[in-house]
Amino acid sequence: MILVAVDAGGTRTRASVVNDALACVGTGRAGRGNPVGGGPDAAFDQILLAVEQAADVARVELRDVSRVTLAGAGGSVFDPAFLAQRLAAAGMTATVTLKGDLAALFCSGTPATSGYSLVAGTGATAVRVVDSVEVQVADGLGWLLGDTGSGFWIGRRVARAVAAALDGRESTTMVEPALRVLGIEVDLTLRRGRPVANHQLVDVVYAGSPLGLAALAPVAFLDECDAVSAGIVEEAAQGLARAVADVHSPDVTGPLVVGGGVMSGQPRLRRATLAALGQAGIELPVIEAVDGLLGASVLAVRDTGVVVDDAVFERLRSTTAEQLARPAAQL
Amino acid sequence: MILVAVDAGGTRTRASVVNDALACVGTGRAGRGNPVGGGPDAAFDQILLAVEQAADVARVELRDVSRVTLAGAGGSVFDPAFLAQRLAAAGMTATVTLKGDLAALFCSGTPATSGYSLVAGTGATAVRVVDSVEVQVADGLGWLLGDTGSGFWIGRRVARAVAAALDGRESTTMVEPALRVLGIEVDLTLRRGRPVANHQLVDVVYAGSPLGLAALAPVAFLDECDAVSAGIVEEAAQGLARAVADVHSPDVTGPLVVGGGVMSGQPRLRRATLAALGQAGIELPVIEAVDGLLGASVLAVRDTGVVVDDAVFERLRSTTAEQLARPAAQL
Repeated sequence: MILVAVDAGGTRTRASVVNDALACVGTGRAGRGNPVGGGPDAAFDQILLAVEQAADVARVELRDVSRVTLAGAGGSVFDPAFLAQRLAAAGMTATVTLKGDLAALFCSGTPATSGYSLVAGTGATAVRVVDSVEVQVADGLGWLLGDTGSGFWIGRRVARAVAAALDGRESTTMVEPALRVLGIEVDLTLRRGRPVANHQLVDVVYAGSPLGLAALAPVAFLDECDAVSAGIVEEAAQGLARAVADVHSPDVTGPLVVGGGVMSGQPRLRRATLAALGQAGIELPVIEAVDGLLGASVLAVRDTGVVVDDAVFERLRSTTAEQLARPAAQL
Repeated sequence: MILVAVDAGGTRTRASVVNDALACVGTGRAGRGNPVGGGPDAAFDQILLAVEQAADVARVELRDVSRVTLAGAGGSVFDPAFLAQRLAAAGMTATVTLKGDLAALFCSGTPATSGYSLVAGTGATAVRVVDSVEVQVADGLGWLLGDTGSGFWIGRRVARAVAAALDGRESTTMVEPALRVLGIEVDLTLRRGRPVANHQLVDVVYAGSPLGLAALAPVAFLDECDAVSAGIVEEAAQGLARAVADVHSPDVTGPLVVGGGVMSGQPRLRRATLAALGQAGIELPVIEAVDGLLGASVLAVRDTGVVVDDAVFERLRSTTAEQLARPAAQL
């Protein structure tokens, strides 16, 4: 029985082929696989690209795949009928199962079936997972309505602090590094009552997509002694801890699997979030996971009725890592 | 000598024709006259539309206008050469002078030449005015980089609080009125771990322009006893007061002219802002102004060398009000 697992993200999509021996025998990679924004057709094209690549590496035919497990934000933003039709058009007769991306992230970190996961990437979401299913979610409402503590949230705060500092209303060491990220020279010559650099900041920020501000998030972590950036990091951590606290239930004792670009890239954010959780009286064992690909494979195997114990988990983990390390998978 | 004054805003543009007797003899009105976003051509088209209307009412020919005084955000976001060329194409030989919209707002409220103005509409800006010119500006950096305390800023906070409340993470009386503004039914049936109304909130908010969230600002003022909305109003007032404090100079004793949609529409925001200013040790006489049209006329007259004393100011004020009250000007 050949299984295909897909982690369809807002930036990239990864697919994995799992064989009868419960080993990953091929992975593939493509672009944005989330239908929000670009629409389901463009997203499915990327998913199919990743699946075809993985099948190619694994030397299996798409028609021989018996199950596709697709993990993505919201779990079921794809219409199942649409998916069935598009897969059939690609010559696949596999059963499709949709999973939440945070359930997949959780299962990437642990063979346990209950606990929590917290992602802080461009967005931010926390969930409680019971029996491999997301049973409660906090935040994940996107850049305008939520995502407190996410890369966008932090980057937006950095941009606002830098704009205020350029106008002399705030004092922070983030000005130069932030302008460097955006390719703006530190020109403090006044024009219409405000430094040239601030006019350029306005031009650059409003010309781009709002979500592009997430690129400024790393700037908040450069100088621990800068009160303004330390305040932003602390508030982000408080927001992320609050999301975990809001899905916490005393009968689910963990673990907490954390992932996402800003959480993985900034150990300080992780430490501050766990400290804030501790202040709220919540102590959980923490595991870091890169993305939901391994977890999607774990969920796919579990859906066939196989118990994923430590040994099975370790086999899936090590073989997936091997496949991802192959040059062909890094397209 | 015939003068034309224009208040070119992000939502609407108004023009006024002032005759030799220093009386307003015609006004006109059109749409968005700010080149940011839609570009200079579309903005100029609206400006010309308003000017033509005003000239029509005043029964003057465009070629007989000797001076056009154009007040807009940033003062000079139009390229003067572009303006000269477009005006010439419309048969006008008038001298064009660009003014800041906050200097114009200031001069709409008082014949004084120095003081402060604070606008809280979709955006938020404070300036210090000396000799009718904006000499220092605080904020006005737009919805992503600043505008703390603006209609967008308040509306975004309302939306985030309502989204969190629908998920049971916050308690506020704003849920029902906010959903009503957006045309969303209060359906609390859970779907994928979250009320249907919250899914719809997400759909509606991300389908529209971010600035559309400013429509939710009035919701923050409905219930003074609601801690969450009271907190938003207080934080908005603190931000607006801080902007005034940051342009305050002890040698400029006022007055403070306030305007903009949310400031004019919500007396509570004005009271809270003045209270916050008082806490910062700043007491200023306050005057309310609707927009910058009268002020643009005042600036136009002043640029001809005429001193605008109380009598001239009152004549311009009353004749402008009369013209604006004519049905034709309310197109």
